[in-house]
This record gives sequence, C-alpha cells and structure tokens, in this order.
Amino acid sequence: MTTETSRLQQYVEVIQQANQIAANTELDALLDKMLDLIISVTHAEAGTLYLYDANSHELVFKVVHGNAASERLVGLRINANSGVAGRALQCAEPLFIHDVMNDPYWDRATGELTGMQLRTMYCVPLILRGQPVGVVQVFNLPAETCDDPEEVALIQLLCSRLVTEVEKARMLEESQRRTRRQQALVEIISNLTSTLDGKTLLDRIMTHACDLLGVEATSIWLRDSINGDLVLHMAIGEHREQLRAIRVPAGQGIIGHVVTTGETVVVNDVQSDQRFYRNVDDHSGFQTRAILCVPMRAPRIIVGGARGAVEEQVIGGAQALNPTNHRAFSEDDISLFTSLASQAATVIRLARLYEETDKLFTRLIDAITGAIDLKDPYTRGHSQRVSDYSVAIAEELGLSQEDIYRIRISSKLHDVGKIRIPDHILNKPDRLDEAEFSEMRQHPTYGLEFLQQNGLLEIDLLRDSWQALAQHHERLDGHGYPNGLHGNQISLVGRIVAVADVFDAISSNRPYRAAMPIEKVFSILRAGAGTELDATCVEALVRARANGKILTQGERHEDGA
Amino acid sequence: MTTETSRLQQYVEVIQQANQIAANTELDALLDKMLDLIISVTHAEAGTLYLYDANSHELVFKVVHGNAASERLVGLRINANSGVAGRALQCAEPLFIHDVMNDPYWDRATGELTGMQLRTMYCVPLILRGQPVGVVQVFNLPAETCDDPEEVALIQLLCSRLVTEVEKARMLEESQRRTRRQQALVEIISNLTSTLDGKTLLDRIMTHACDLLGVEATSIWLRDSINGDLVLHMAIGEHREQLRAIRVPAGQGIIGHVVTTGETVVVNDVQSDQRFYRNVDDHSGFQTRAILCVPMRAPRIIVGGARGAVEEQVIGGAQALNPTNHRAFSEDDISLFTSLASQAATVIRLARLYEETDKLFTRLIDAITGAIDLKDPYTRGHSQRVSDYSVAIAEELGLSQEDIYRIRISSKLHDVGKIRIPDHILNKPDRLDEAEFSEMRQHPTYGLEFLQQNGLLEIDLLRDSWQALAQHHERLDGHGYPNGLHGNQISLVGRIVAVADVFDAISSNRPYRAAMPIEKVFSILRAGAGTELDATCVEALVRARANGKILTQGERHEDGA
Repeated sequence: MTTETSRLQQYVEVIQQANQIAANTELDALLDKMLDLIISVTHAEAGTLYLYDANSHELVFKVVHGNAASERLVGLRINANSGVAGRALQCAEPLFIHDVMNDPYWDRATGELTGMQLRTMYCVPLILRGQPVGVVQVFNLPAETCDDPEEVALIQLLCSRLVTEVEKARMLEESQRRTRRQQALVEIISNLTSTLDGKTLLDRIMTHACDLLGVEATSIWLRDSINGDLVLHMAIGEHREQLRAIRVPAGQGIIGHVVTTGETVVVNDVQSDQRFYRNVDDHSGFQTRAILCVPMRAPRIIVGGARGAVEEQVIGGAQALNPTNHRAFSEDDISLFTSLASQAATVIRLARLYEETDKLFTRLIDAITGAIDLKDPYTRGHSQRVSDYSVAIAEELGLSQEDIYRIRISSKLHDVGKIRIPDHILNKPDRLDEAEFSEMRQHPTYGLEFLQQNGLLEIDLLRDSWQALAQHHERLDGHGYPNGLHGNQISLVGRIVAVADVFDAISSNRPYRAAMPIEKVFSILRAGAGTELDATCVEALVRARANGKILTQGERHEDGA
Repeated sequence: MTTETSRLQQYVEVIQQANQIAANTELDALLDKMLDLIISVTHAEAGTLYLYDANSHELVFKVVHGNAASERLVGLRINANSGVAGRALQCAEPLFIHDVMNDPYWDRATGELTGMQLRTMYCVPLILRGQPVGVVQVFNLPAETCDDPEEVALIQLLCSRLVTEVEKARMLEESQRRTRRQQALVEIISNLTSTLDGKTLLDRIMTHACDLLGVEATSIWLRDSINGDLVLHMAIGEHREQLRAIRVPAGQGIIGHVVTTGETVVVNDVQSDQRFYRNVDDHSGFQTRAILCVPMRAPRIIVGGARGAVEEQVIGGAQALNPTNHRAFSEDDISLFTSLASQAATVIRLARLYEETDKLFTRLIDAITGAIDLKDPYTRGHSQRVSDYSVAIAEELGLSQEDIYRIRISSKLHDVGKIRIPDHILNKPDRLDEAEFSEMRQHPTYGLEFLQQNGLLEIDLLRDSWQALAQHHERLDGHGYPNGLHGNQISLVGRIVAVADVFDAISSNRPYRAAMPIEKVFSILRAGAGTELDATCVEALVRARANGKILTQGERHEDGA
C-alpha cells in the first residue's frame, strides 16, 4: 500500500501521461497509446481494445498488444452482445475475471487465436452519454490491482479521461473521410470538361464511382424510348464484357422499379427481394449481393427552341453493386452516387444534343445538295460523290479530323451556285452558246454569294467552305474560272475539290456518253496534273482508289433523291 | 492546507468534472463549461477564454464569464503578441498578476470595456505540441490560490486535460464546416440541370458563390475574342447595376493577368497591388479591398465535327471580392470558388453551343427558303413573310413557345416543293394550261417528299413540319389540293399557314397587279372563312394586324436575297 502522497503523485502522473497521449488527433495512434498506458497502469501482460460500430451493433478489434500472434485479430468483428466484452457493455461497469478460460462468457474460439495462457482479465466498457464507444480488456494482471479500490478508481478515471478523446477522434476521422469523398467528387465534376466524348466521360464517372463508393461494379441503364425496356448503356467492374446489349423489360427488376417510380432503392440482400431480376446475373456470371440504384434525370432537349425551365424526365438509372468487405450501403454512399449519376445524366444529355445537332446539320446540308442535284438530273448524286472523293483525298494527305469534317461538308455544297442557273441552260442537251456558257461559269460566284447572303460564313463549320464553292473550277495555270487564279492563289480545299469534281465528271455515265475505264480516267487526270490540277491531290486520289476508298458512280448502288 | 486524502479527492473530483465537460463535442459548449470549471476551481470572480487564429496570428475572445457588460468582447480580435495573454503565450507558462490595473502588459482599453474593478489575474496559456491553442484568464481570485503550488499544479493539470479536447473539437468544427460547404457545392452542381437558361444558371451559381464564400460581390468577365478585352458578363452584389457593359483592356488589371497567364490570383489588399485596375471601382462606386480571381476554362466547341480530347481555352475569369468580417481568403475559399467557376464555364460553353446550333439551324433553313425564292423572283421574300404571319397568328391563338418555334420554321419551308417545279411553269407570265397547273398543284406533295427523302422528319424540330408543307393548299370544304382534305382532317398548322399564305398573296404587289388595300384583303379573307379558310385563324390575323404585328410586303423595307 502506497502513502497518500505517492498515491496523489501516481494519479497526477497517470493523468499527465493520458494528457500527452490525448494530444494525438489520429484515432489509431490514440488507441494504440491508450492501450499501452492501461496495460502499464494495470501491470497486465497483454490487452485488446475494441471500438463499437453502431451501424451493425458490432465490436471491432482495433488494437491488440502484448501478443504478436494475435495481431490477426485486428479488424475482426464480434456481436456487441456476446462474450465478456458484450457483458461489460450491458452491465455498463468494469468486470474482473479471476479465471478467464473457465468463465461462462469467455469466447473460446477467439481466445484460442491468441495462443496465450490467459489467467486473469480486467474488462472496462467505454461508455459516453449512455452510448457504447468501445471496450478495453487487459489480461494476466496481478489480482491485487483489482482488489484495490483506488487502483480500480484510477483505471476508471483514466478510461473516462480518454473516452471523450476517442469519441472526438472518431468523429473527426469520419468527418475528414466525408470531406475527402466530397472533395474527390468535386474534382471529378470539375474535370469533366477536358473531353466532350460521352463514352470516355461516362466511363470516367462510373470508374470513380466504383472507387469512391468501394463497390465491385457500377452500371448505367437507359430507357428505350420506344418500348420502355432498360438497356445496359455501360458497365464498370468484372463481367462487364458479358453484359453487352443486355436488356431488362420495362418495369421489371429493381432498375425497372427505380425508373418507373423515380425513387432511389437500396437493397442490401437482393436474393430476398421480390423485384430482383435474375437474368442479368445468369447472363454475366456476376453474383449480385447488394444494389444501390438511383434514377437518372435529364431535361428533354431539343435543338433550337425555348430555353426556360425544362421538364425533367427519368432517362434511366445508375446502379452500384456489392460494397466491398460486406459493408452495407450508407447514407453517404447514396448521396455521393446520386451526385455522380446526375453528372452522368448531364453527360448523356450533352452527347444526345451533339448527335441531334450533327444529324440536323448533315441532313440540312444534304437537303440543300439534294435540291441542287434535282435541278440537274444528269448529275444525280454528283455532290455526294464529290464529297466522298474529297474526303478520301484529304485522308490520304493526312489532314486533321476537323479539317476533313469541314471538307466533307463544303465539298458537298460546291455546286450550290447552280441553283441560280436557269433550267434551260443547266439541262440543255446541246452545246451551250457563248452567253449560256458565260452564265454557267458564274456558278462558283453564285455559290459564294449564296453563302454570304444567307450568313452561312458566320457559322464556324462553314467559315472556310467558300473555297470549295468559289475555287473548284480554278486551274493552277490560271486558265480556270471565275477569277483565273494562279498556283498558290488556289487554296488546298479548292484543289482537292477540283480533282474530285473532274474525276466524277469523267468517271460517271452521262446520257450522251458512257463512263470511261478507270485507267483512262487516271491517265487524263495525270495528264492535267501541274497545269490544270494539283499533282499531289491527283496522286492522293489514285492511292485512295488503290486502297479501295473510291467507288465510281457506276460501281455504286444508289437510290438517288 | 487540506490533508493529503482530501487533496486526492479534490484532484479526482476536478478531473471527473473535466471528463464530464469533455463529453461535449461542440466547441462553444465545451469552451463555455471549461471556463466555468476553471473559475470555480480558482475561486475567481470572472474569466475570459481566447482561441488562437493561426491564419491571422490573433487571439479571438470566445467566452467571457462573470461580467454581463463584457459580453460585447465576444468575437473581438487582438494581436497574439500583445497584452498579458500574448506574454503568457510567449513565455509558455501561466502568469499570476497581483495588481492587474498597474501591470505594464495590461491592455487598458480592452480592460475598461469590462467595467469591472480588476485586482488579481491568473493567465494560463493553452499550448499543444508547442503550438498556441488559446489563453484562459481568470480575475479577482484569492492570492492564496496562486501561492499554493498544488493548486497551481491542479489548474495546469486541468488545462492540459482539456486543451486536447478543445483542439479536437475545433478540428471537428472546421472539418464539418468544410463538409457542409462541399455538400452545398455538390447540391448546387447537381441542381444545375433544372433549367437550360444560361443567364439564370450563372446568376444562381454566382449567388451561391457569394453566400458560400461569404464575400460582398462576385462577377464573371469574358474575353472578347476580337481584341482580348475583358467584358463584364454578370455580377452579384451591391453596385452590380452600375457595372453594365464595363470593360477592362486586354492584359490590364488582376483579371487581365489571370486570363493571360491562366493562374489563380489572391490579393488581400488590392490597394497595394500594382496590377489593380481602379477604373472599375471608380465606375461602380464599389470599394474593392480583396480579390480572389480564378481563370475560367472551357473547351473550344464547334457544332458537328470530332468529339475527342478538346483543347481548353481560358474564356475569361471569375472574381470574388471582399470577404466579410475582414477575413483573408483561405485555401478552402480558393478551391470552392475554382469549382464554382468551372461550373460557370460549363454553363457558358453550353449556352454558346445552343446559340451556335440555333444560328446554324435558322441560317440553313433560311438558305433553303432563299433558294426557293430565287426560283420565283415574283414572290421574293414570300417564305419569310408567311412565316412571320403564321407566328403572329399562332401567338394570337395562345400557342406554346415551343409550338410557335416549330411553326416559325415549318411555315418558312411551306413552298419548298416548288424546287421541283420547272422554271418555265413557275415563272410563266401567262395563265397556266391544265397540264402545267396540275404539275404546279404537286408542290405540296413534292415538299413532303423533300422532307422525307432528306430524312428531315427524323429531326425533332421538323417532325411536324410536313403539315405546313403538305396542307397549306387544303380547304375546309374539301376543294383544296393535293388531297382534298375536309375540316378536321386539316391540322391547325395547315390552317394557320393557309391563311398566312393567302394573306401574303393578295396583300403583295405583283408585276401584273398592285397590292390591294388592307381592308379589301381582310374582307376577302373573311369571305373565305368557313369554306376555304379557318375563321379563328383569320380573326387571329386581323387581331394581330390591329396589334401592329403584321406588315405587308409593301410596308416592309427588305433587301431580299
């Protein structure tokens, strides 16, 4: 028995040590040093510290000291009602056990993992405001420690001194984890503008979703606007390859429920859920255990038109499957996944807008070229063929995708000026007289005027298209029309379209003459190279033909407008 | 002097009380109760507790007890080097002051705010891992307390027991605040799809930025693509009205620096920054003190074309001005504002895409109608006028914005089938013979075929446009062409365009006859109402004319294509 003075000293020293330990703000370090101190104060040989998980009502082994073999216990979970630890939590007071191995509450299986000869045990529940926080157990301590009420009081004072630190460190860890997740989410969202490719973006979003949520797989399902089926749009995780083009009938499965009702659904055990649609797993070989499924909403978008408040529609749903480590989905998981699904919906909306714009643009350009071809039945399909040939030449020349796209469009329009040439000139079966020929030679100029007068040169994609229209009858030697430009005065686009135009003219059947054999066509083109035509463009066309990219009018099966 | 036993009891009781106080996870409650306990243990009359702000090296009054008048001190900030508190922090040990009012370190001005007669003071610095956390001061305590080393030791033990809790509660508060901010950010981003109106969205984003950052004003500046000037696009906060259309010359000001270099700039005192461009403040009357300015990046977007990785360009910058309470901008502020600016850039990018699409669509439609009008010089401008009249009728009928937009487009195309009518029929000055008239009456059918063959009915905006093309020569009494439809068989769009078409035909000058007076035009229309034309549409046109919405060909100043 110590004197009172040394007892006071002992208390002060222990509290001071506890204060130093409490300076740790990291939970793991705090728990580690806390268990060390308790083992030292109780003169025990070993100890364990559990934290309570309120979500699952389990105790999780966090630290094991004094027994190297038992490190394998860390991370293990036990029911919070079981064993000596469970009993201590229920009684809400410390238990001293003189003979651990024969205690009725002792969990032999877990105990044997330690491989230790356990004799005595002191078990202190960590409780704060009536709620369990964890349990500390120390083993093989001298029985005197627990027989001395002042020793016991000191251990309890020490535990109650530190339990508040444990609680705060745990809350801090949880809050910081949440912040990091949100931060990651914000970064994902902020970096979405680095590409406009819908497929890449969705892949990126759903890959991040897999990582951030810690799930085995994610997927996006879109509603088929015709029959309401849910069609797999993309999937991340194993077995994704087996899932191509898979469908779930309208209203079926958890995904069908979510898309129909617009509600988020969480099922932590799908095998016992009536709605679960087994065919997908049967198909892929994936075994779904738990599903988080959120609806994807996007406004209905039409190109052009009003821009005000927009009615949102459920266009599909996003799924996250099987949280790793057999966790259940948390509220945090749901809110994070909802945000990611909303970003995915925006990406899909944009991709559809682009598709619609593309369709709009090409269809309207085709309608205009169709109208030109209507005027001149002899040259039906000419505009489209010149465009195909121009693209083939541009590809052989190694131009950029964007340049090739512009050439595709502008070459289609090359003869648009013919719209102003009177039918009787355009369709005259005989040779044109001088006045008629002079009018005919105006069509490149008329084409340029068509672009200018309709403000089409202000459209980014058509900005350089005037070259195809105005220069496709110019010649390198200056003997072309309408402006008699020489050599470098003619743009590359003008040269490309000139070659494509001549090629189509001499390789096509006309009412008044049959198409020439292709060898003759090329020899004529080559003969004109350098004076009339650009030699590089001519050779590019010859190469494209050799690569199978060029089909003449007679080789095509066209239904013409 | 107490006995050792009661001294131990006293220590245990104080630590137990401290443990209870420490169960508070909220910082304010924790500090409040902590000061109470220290006042009670020291038998003092009053006390104050400061927290240290590492950002500004200041001490902030957090709690004042025992003096009602001094509540006004809460929130006040003092330099962390000044006063008794500053000295205690520097010495890193408690100070006992026997005569506060005459102490050389005592800050009289602050002291007088208390209105108290201060005699003694005990000042304990709260320090953790060598870093200041705060300072506790208690007043008018018995001198014996500070003469008794065990009392002093107890107070220090108590403070070191609680300082770790204060630190953790503060970190927790900070982390939770950060999480809430991020959460708010994610919610803002997720709700962006509820409208597509760029103006509304930018207003919403920048208003949230004002709130979340706690600043007086935010603004967005966009680079003028021609001369590189920065043009104010929108502003939130006072004085926003004074800022309309204001410009900063290229490269000038902090905004110019940010847009040129692509760097984020934080200036907490703009008056001493060389780059600061005073003209804006002079113009608005706003007084800028601190600026956070981040670049706004968006990919260059063209309608149609490739969709792969996109080169990002700095399109402008976003500014946040003057954090409230004279705070400095924090790292958190910068990252939050960067995310919001990136969202704003996406919105601007989308709005531009819409504008470009709109322009593309209307220009191409106009090009097609221009081509029709070219074929028939007598009816120059006819398609555009019929579109204007159809829109006016639709507005009078109260149709939706979306329907009106569709009618605008489809009515412009109503005569597109004439593109297939040979020039000699279309332009024949004399009366057409039966065969010619029969061909002429094919133009609504040709129009429908034009839409079908070019796939234009698959474009959402043109889906219903066939009605305007196919039905504008049908009559309610079944005597119209091409299909002789009756009454309700004719769509509303068909009826509207029919009225607009007849109105333009008889209200326009033709080479062979002058325009009729408007009264006569209306009486002809009314005479046809019920048999040929829809009476409701005729009356809607008459009302639209009365409302000034209808100008006849002769009343317009057109430069025609």
